Amino acid sequence: MIHLVLPNAEMRDRLQGRLSDVEASIWRPGSADPFPGRTELLVLPYMIPASELGGLDGLPVGVVQSQTLGYDGVAEHLPKGLVYCNAVGVHEASTGELALGLVLASLRGIADAVRSAGRGEWRHRRQPGLSGKRVLLLGAGGVGAEIEKRLEPFGAELRVVARTPRGGIFGLPSLPGLLPWADVVIVAIPLTDQTRGFVDAGFLARMRDGALIVNVSRGEVFDTGALLAELLAERLHAALDVTDPEPLPPAHPLWSAPNVLITPHLGGDTEAMDARMDRIVVEQLRRLRAGEAPLHVVYGADR
Amino acid sequence: MIHLVLPNAEMRDRLQGRLSDVEASIWRPGSADPFPGRTELLVLPYMIPASELGGLDGLPVGVVQSQTLGYDGVAEHLPKGLVYCNAVGVHEASTGELALGLVLASLRGIADAVRSAGRGEWRHRRQPGLSGKRVLLLGAGGVGAEIEKRLEPFGAELRVVARTPRGGIFGLPSLPGLLPWADVVIVAIPLTDQTRGFVDAGFLARMRDGALIVNVSRGEVFDTGALLAELLAERLHAALDVTDPEPLPPAHPLWSAPNVLITPHLGGDTEAMDARMDRIVVEQLRRLRAGEAPLHVVYGADR
Repeated sequence: MIHLVLPNAEMRDRLQGRLSDVEASIWRPGSADPFPGRTELLVLPYMIPASELGGLDGLPVGVVQSQTLGYDGVAEHLPKGLVYCNAVGVHEASTGELALGLVLASLRGIADAVRSAGRGEWRHRRQPGLSGKRVLLLGAGGVGAEIEKRLEPFGAELRVVARTPRGGIFGLPSLPGLLPWADVVIVAIPLTDQTRGFVDAGFLARMRDGALIVNVSRGEVFDTGALLAELLAERLHAALDVTDPEPLPPAHPLWSAPNVLITPHLGGDTEAMDARMDRIVVEQLRRLRAGEAPLHVVYGADR
Repeated sequence: MIHLVLPNAEMRDRLQGRLSDVEASIWRPGSADPFPGRTELLVLPYMIPASELGGLDGLPVGVVQSQTLGYDGVAEHLPKGLVYCNAVGVHEASTGELALGLVLASLRGIADAVRSAGRGEWRHRRQPGLSGKRVLLLGAGGVGAEIEKRLEPFGAELRVVARTPRGGIFGLPSLPGLLPWADVVIVAIPLTDQTRGFVDAGFLARMRDGALIVNVSRGEVFDTGALLAELLAERLHAALDVTDPEPLPPAHPLWSAPNVLITPHLGGDTEAMDARMDRIVVEQLRRLRAGEAPLHVVYGADR
C-alpha cells in the first residue's frame, strides 16, 4: 500500500481508477494534522510559495512532487531528508505557446487594439510584425526548445544564447554583441543565484531603440527598476508574464508604464496541464511501487 | 520609356535606382489632373475603396496594380478596358501571422490580461491554451496555407475545409458536421457573392458552446447581427480583424460585446509589406518592358 497525498480533490477524481493499491488523501497545508501518517508521495499545490515547504519539517514524507518547473527558493526551505522532484514536461509547451502569444500580441498591435477597443476606437496603424525580424532567445532548456519550435514557421531570424554553447547555440560571451542585433529578446532561463537580476540596466542599454523584451522565466531575473526606466523613456517595449513582485500590486508603476504588456503568470496554466501532471504522478507511483528512483529529482534525500 | 504612377512618394523613394527608363509620378486621386498622361502601370493606394476606381474612367491607364489580395467590389467599379492585378504574395504571410496572434491572444487570456492591466488588476485564471485543441480552418488559399504552416508546431488537431475538396482537405458538404467538432474555427476565405453572409446564424449555431471563431477574411463574410447575438448570449468567443462596417463606428455594439477581440484590419499591414509590394511593381515593369503579360491578372482588358 502506497500513501499518496494530493493537493486537491480534482486531482484525486481525475486519477481515480489509476490508483490501485494506493491510499490517497488531500493535503491541508498549515493545519495541525495535514497528513494521515506515513506519506510516500506528496504532490504540492500548483504555485505554492517555496516558504511553505518549511511546514513539512518533521512530517513523515518521502518524495515531494511539485507542479512547477522552476525551483527557486526550494533549497532554502525544503527540510533535510525529503526528496524533491520538479514537473519536467508539464509546462514547457504551454510556456513556449504563451511566449509566441506575447511576441505576436506585441508586434502585431493586438494589445494596443484591445486598449483602443475599450474606447470604441478603430485605430489602424502599420505594425512591425514578426516576419523578417531578428529574434534572440536566451535559454536553450525545455522552454527554449518549445519556443524555438513554434517560432520556426514565422520567418524570423533566430539566434540562441545559453550558458553552455554547443552546435548552433552561442555562449554567454556572445550575448553583449548579440543584444544590439536583436529586434526581439526572449528570456527563458531559470531563476538561480547566477541569473537573479541578470537583465539589468547594462543588458537593457545594449538593446536597440524600439526593441521588444519578453520575460517568460521569473520576474526576479529582471531588474524591474532598470526595465521601468527604459519603458518610461519609451525606448524599449516589454511583454512580461512574470514580474517582481508577484502578484504585481495594484499601484505598481509597471501597470501604467507605456509599451508594456503584462499577463498574470499564465505560462503553464492551461487546460493541457492536468493530463501532463497526472502522467507524472502515475509514473512516480509506479516507480515507488517497483522500488525505482523517482523521475525528475532536483534534490535527493542525502542533500 | 514606361510611365508609372505610384500612390505615394515613399514608394517612389524606395524604388529609386530600380526604375531605369521609367518616368514615375504620384497619383492624386480625385484631382482634375491625376496623371501626367499615358500611364502603363498605376499602383493603387493600399486599401483604397473599390468605388474610387470609377474615377479612372476615360483616363489613359493600362494596368492597375492593387496592394490588396481581396478584390471584392472591383468588378462593379473598374472601367472597361483596364487590366486589374491583385497583390498575390504580399499579405498572405502577414495575415497568417495575425491569425495565430488572434488565436493565441484569445485562448491564452492575453486580451483579458490587457483589460485587467488597465485597472491595475493581476487576475490569474487557467486559460484554454491552443495545445490539443481542435481547429477548423475554412479556406485553403494563400492565407489558409500560411495559417496552416504556422499552426503546425502548436500541437492542435487541424481540419481544413475548402470549396474544392482535395487530398486532406474537406469539401463544403463536410462543414456542418465539422462545426460542432471544433474548439476554434478560423475563417480565411475571399469575399464573393457566394461567401457574403456565409457565417450566418445557422453556421454559428452549429459551433459548440464556448468555441472561438476568428475572422481574417472580410467583415461581410459574417452576418454581424447573428455573431452579435451569440456574443451577447456569451455562448461563443470571437476574434475579428475585419468587421462590417469598417471602420467600426464608435457606438457599434460589437465594441462592448463580451468575449470579443477586435483588431482594426491589421492583417497585411506590417513592416514586411513594402519589400514584398515593391518586388511586384518591379516585376510588372519588367514584364511591360519585355511585352509579357502582367502577373496576377484578376480582370483583363477584354472583360
